[in-house]
Amino acid sequence: MTKKSKISSNVVWHHATIDRQQREEMNGHKSVILWFTGLSGSGKSTLAHAVEDELYARKCRTYVLDGDNIRHGLCGDLGFSDADRVENIRRISELAKLFLEAGVISLTAFISPFRSDRDNVRNLVPHGDFLEIFCHCPLETCEERDVKGLYKKARSGEIKAFTGISSPYEAPQSPELVVNTGSETLEESTAQVIKLLVDRGIIQA
Amino acid sequence: MTKKSKISSNVVWHHATIDRQQREEMNGHKSVILWFTGLSGSGKSTLAHAVEDELYARKCRTYVLDGDNIRHGLCGDLGFSDADRVENIRRISELAKLFLEAGVISLTAFISPFRSDRDNVRNLVPHGDFLEIFCHCPLETCEERDVKGLYKKARSGEIKAFTGISSPYEAPQSPELVVNTGSETLEESTAQVIKLLVDRGIIQA
Repeated sequence: MTKKSKISSNVVWHHATIDRQQREEMNGHKSVILWFTGLSGSGKSTLAHAVEDELYARKCRTYVLDGDNIRHGLCGDLGFSDADRVENIRRISELAKLFLEAGVISLTAFISPFRSDRDNVRNLVPHGDFLEIFCHCPLETCEERDVKGLYKKARSGEIKAFTGISSPYEAPQSPELVVNTGSETLEESTAQVIKLLVDRGIIQA
Repeated sequence: MTKKSKISSNVVWHHATIDRQQREEMNGHKSVILWFTGLSGSGKSTLAHAVEDELYARKCRTYVLDGDNIRHGLCGDLGFSDADRVENIRRISELAKLFLEAGVISLTAFISPFRSDRDNVRNLVPHGDFLEIFCHCPLETCEERDVKGLYKKARSGEIKAFTGISSPYEAPQSPELVVNTGSETLEESTAQVIKLLVDRGIIQA
C-alpha cells in the first residue's frame, strides 16, 4: 500500500495510501451509495434516517446527506434554476463518491427528479456501488401530508417549478428497490432496504 | 435521539438521527479536522497520508482530502482565479465539516495560502474541531525538490500566480502545530501530529 515518493532531496518519504478495501475490512461491511429518490413528502429523508438508525445498531458506518446538511452548506451558493439543480446533484454525487471511498455507507435523500442526473451518479462509481431506491408515493398522498407546506405554495404559484406540480418527476425505470412509502409503515420500508443491503453483500445478515 | 415527525396522515413516522457523539463512541475516538497548510512541495499530502496510515493502525476512521480526489471531482468546475480559489477552499471546508459530523478524522492537504480562508474554516466548526498544521519548509527547499515540476513552470511564467513565486503565502500566525518538513524526517513529523491528537484528547495514547 506504499509507493515511493522522493519529496526531499535528502530523505525518501513513502507515500502511504489507505484504500477503500482496508477501510471496509476495518468496518466489517462494504460501502455503498443508497440513493433515495421521490417526490417531496414521499418520506426519503425519514426513511434514510430510519435505515441509518438500524445500521448504527448493527455497528455500520453511515452518513445521511439531505437538504438539512447540504443546502445551507456545500450547496449554499446554489438556487433552484435548472442549471443550479444539476450542479446541486453533481456535487452531492461527488460527495457520495468520497464517502464511498472512505468506507462509509452514504444515504442521500433528494428529490433528484431527473433520470439523467441519477444516471450520472450511477456512472460515476463502480457497478453495484450505487443503489437507487424509489420512494413511491402518490402525489395526492404527498400533497395531503404537505409537511412543509410546500405543495400549498406550489399550487398558489408562490413556488415556481415545483416537482410533481409544475415540474416533472421522472420515475426510475429500473431502480434496485421500490418502496411504497404511501402505504407501507416505516418499519416495513426500512426492512426492505436492510434486506437489499444483505442480499447485495454490503452488510451481514 | 428521535423526534416525532408525522409524515403520513395515517402513520406516525419517527425521525431518527444518529449524532456525532454516537458515531465517536462507536469509533472509539473523536472526530476533528486536521488542516495541513504550506507551500507546494512542503509535504502536506505525504504527511497527511503518513498520519492516516498511523491512525489506521490504531483503528481510527480517517479520510484524506487533497488535490487528487477533489480537483477532478467536487471542484472539477473550478479554475485558479482568486474567486475560484476561495470557492475551492469553501467547498473543501464544508466537506470537512460533513466528515466531522460523520465521526471521521479528515486530513486536508491544500496550499490554502490565505489566512482569511483558513480562518473561515476555523469559524465554521466548533472550537477545537479545527487543528491547523503548518508544514514549514523553506521556499528554496520546495523549489529544489520541485516534485511536480511546477516551480520551473512558475519561474518561466508558464504558470501564473503561483504561491511563493508570484502569489503570496500567508503563514499561519498561531497554528496548533508547526512541523518543519524541510528538515525533519517523515517519521518525526508524523509523530508530532499524533502527539497533538493525543494531547487534545482526540485519540487515545
